[in-house]
Amino acid sequence: VVPPKPEDAIVQVIANTLETKLGKAPDGEVWLGDDSAVLAPPRPGDLVLTSIDATVEGVHVDLALASLSDVGWKALTVAVSDLAAMGGRPSYALVSVSGPPGLDFPLLYEGLVGAAATWGCPIVGGDVTAADQLVISVAVTGTSPGPPEQPPVRRSGALVGDTLLVTGPCGASAAGLRLLRAGHGPSDVHGLAAPHRRPMARLAEGWVARRSGTNAMMDISDGLSIDLSLLLAASGLGAALDLVPVAPGATEADALGGGEDYELLMAVADPDRVLVEFAAAGLRPPLRIGRCTGEPGIITLQGEVLPITGWQHTF
Amino acid sequence: VVPPKPEDAIVQVIANTLETKLGKAPDGEVWLGDDSAVLAPPRPGDLVLTSIDATVEGVHVDLALASLSDVGWKALTVAVSDLAAMGGRPSYALVSVSGPPGLDFPLLYEGLVGAAATWGCPIVGGDVTAADQLVISVAVTGTSPGPPEQPPVRRSGALVGDTLLVTGPCGASAAGLRLLRAGHGPSDVHGLAAPHRRPMARLAEGWVARRSGTNAMMDISDGLSIDLSLLLAASGLGAALDLVPVAPGATEADALGGGEDYELLMAVADPDRVLVEFAAAGLRPPLRIGRCTGEPGIITLQGEVLPITGWQHTF
Repeated sequence: VVPPKPEDAIVQVIANTLETKLGKAPDGEVWLGDDSAVLAPPRPGDLVLTSIDATVEGVHVDLALASLSDVGWKALTVAVSDLAAMGGRPSYALVSVSGPPGLDFPLLYEGLVGAAATWGCPIVGGDVTAADQLVISVAVTGTSPGPPEQPPVRRSGALVGDTLLVTGPCGASAAGLRLLRAGHGPSDVHGLAAPHRRPMARLAEGWVARRSGTNAMMDISDGLSIDLSLLLAASGLGAALDLVPVAPGATEADALGGGEDYELLMAVADPDRVLVEFAAAGLRPPLRIGRCTGEPGIITLQGEVLPITGWQHTF
Repeated sequence: VVPPKPEDAIVQVIANTLETKLGKAPDGEVWLGDDSAVLAPPRPGDLVLTSIDATVEGVHVDLALASLSDVGWKALTVAVSDLAAMGGRPSYALVSVSGPPGLDFPLLYEGLVGAAATWGCPIVGGDVTAADQLVISVAVTGTSPGPPEQPPVRRSGALVGDTLLVTGPCGASAAGLRLLRAGHGPSDVHGLAAPHRRPMARLAEGWVARRSGTNAMMDISDGLSIDLSLLLAASGLGAALDLVPVAPGATEADALGGGEDYELLMAVADPDRVLVEFAAAGLRPPLRIGRCTGEPGIITLQGEVLPITGWQHTF
């Protein structure tokens, strides 16, 4: 006697996909299907980290250039990246999808679930509503375990003389987007467009950075120059850069202002220690790009003042 | 040397509003301005409850009939209601707002913050992006404290013979929406349209219900009949209703299918105990509407099979 609502069928497909790919909730937890999820608390003493990010069609993603699966991957990954940038680990995600009638939810969830499995971040709850434009909001919650002397790494802790490191070269996402717009490789998810379509969250890098005495850290979402300026502003400092780390296929402008690389930017007192710890963890060595100075708001590149450019979402 | 991004000004206004109205983060916590929020863990043994809800312009709210402040209130309150429906308490919220250029963020946040202060649920993080249509996603996290024998109240625990209670009469939101559409009282937030524009989360009621031995509970968001059918489906039962609790100004159809009332529906073995506990807490007595039966999927009203109607979001 109960007429099914259109959402019910979608929610059932989502629930089946999640359970198949991510497993069932452990005993005592409830992941989907009730008013809220029920979860075991973190270990006593662990701090809780939590962040929300929206991915909007036409602003962050172009559905002519990326599949819905890519969009799902990206929406979850960029939220996880915020926890990586604190040196934390994700525990679970909530996903809210607003989209037009006929949206291919299974394809979207293929990407969401793929990222959730990759980052160890099960999707424990969500919401599905109608909207003219696709908007995916992902809230990720995790923890910052470890001794109290290794708290979450904030943007504001950099000191004069700290060495600036990045976990990898920048601009790959902008270069990939340019390739896609030129009609190259739209189906080549593992190729040059992959950094744009399937970015990575630098979880292992952020974890090791926190345990190696990193003073300040953030992820590079809007471009190296604007994100560096944000870290420096939070710390009340300036910076003298020796080089811009440019990814293969990218330009220096891509690296400085392209955005969406999700590499981590770190300010550290002892870069040698950090490099040793990264090597011990089997991670690619971070790149030295310069050091922090006591001139707030001033960034120089090889002695010349650097104009700040950033990836601008339309607003 | 850093050109401010348009979002920066908005985020600063939001941050100032939040700090003024909701206070600063306690020592050791970080609420806004970094990659993620940092929060103290819940008390050892407390279960974590978490839920996300999207409120979409043109689907859930009509900006011709409600102010942005009302929309903000509603977006946060309906997410809190999901925790009320488990018998939990909110701890904090994340708010993601996607909206068109020129959106009046201070007005929207007036409502969000008003609800956050009312429900004791500080907004500790968020995201602001451009979109053609206003979409507000609110993720609320809280706890279900108390002894293990009083776990979060799920939808699936109802038993044959349980009495069905609701925390208040239904249909007020639908009746209020009708008044607004007819041009009555759009500025009268405390009047008959208030249940539609500024719904309440039944937190105290859910809390007392959990501690009074309630077997199953959910909030009524889509209308009494469809939400009752969901609770019964989760519990594998049917129901025999004696009456439909109709709010002043509403019709029986409003109460059964209007939706957005956010009263709590409960299945209890000992209704007298629940009424005593509600009275002891100074709460309005819940209304007895019928009892659970062993005929799955069948709901009767005074002996006649009840057609199931629900508030349909366009999809």
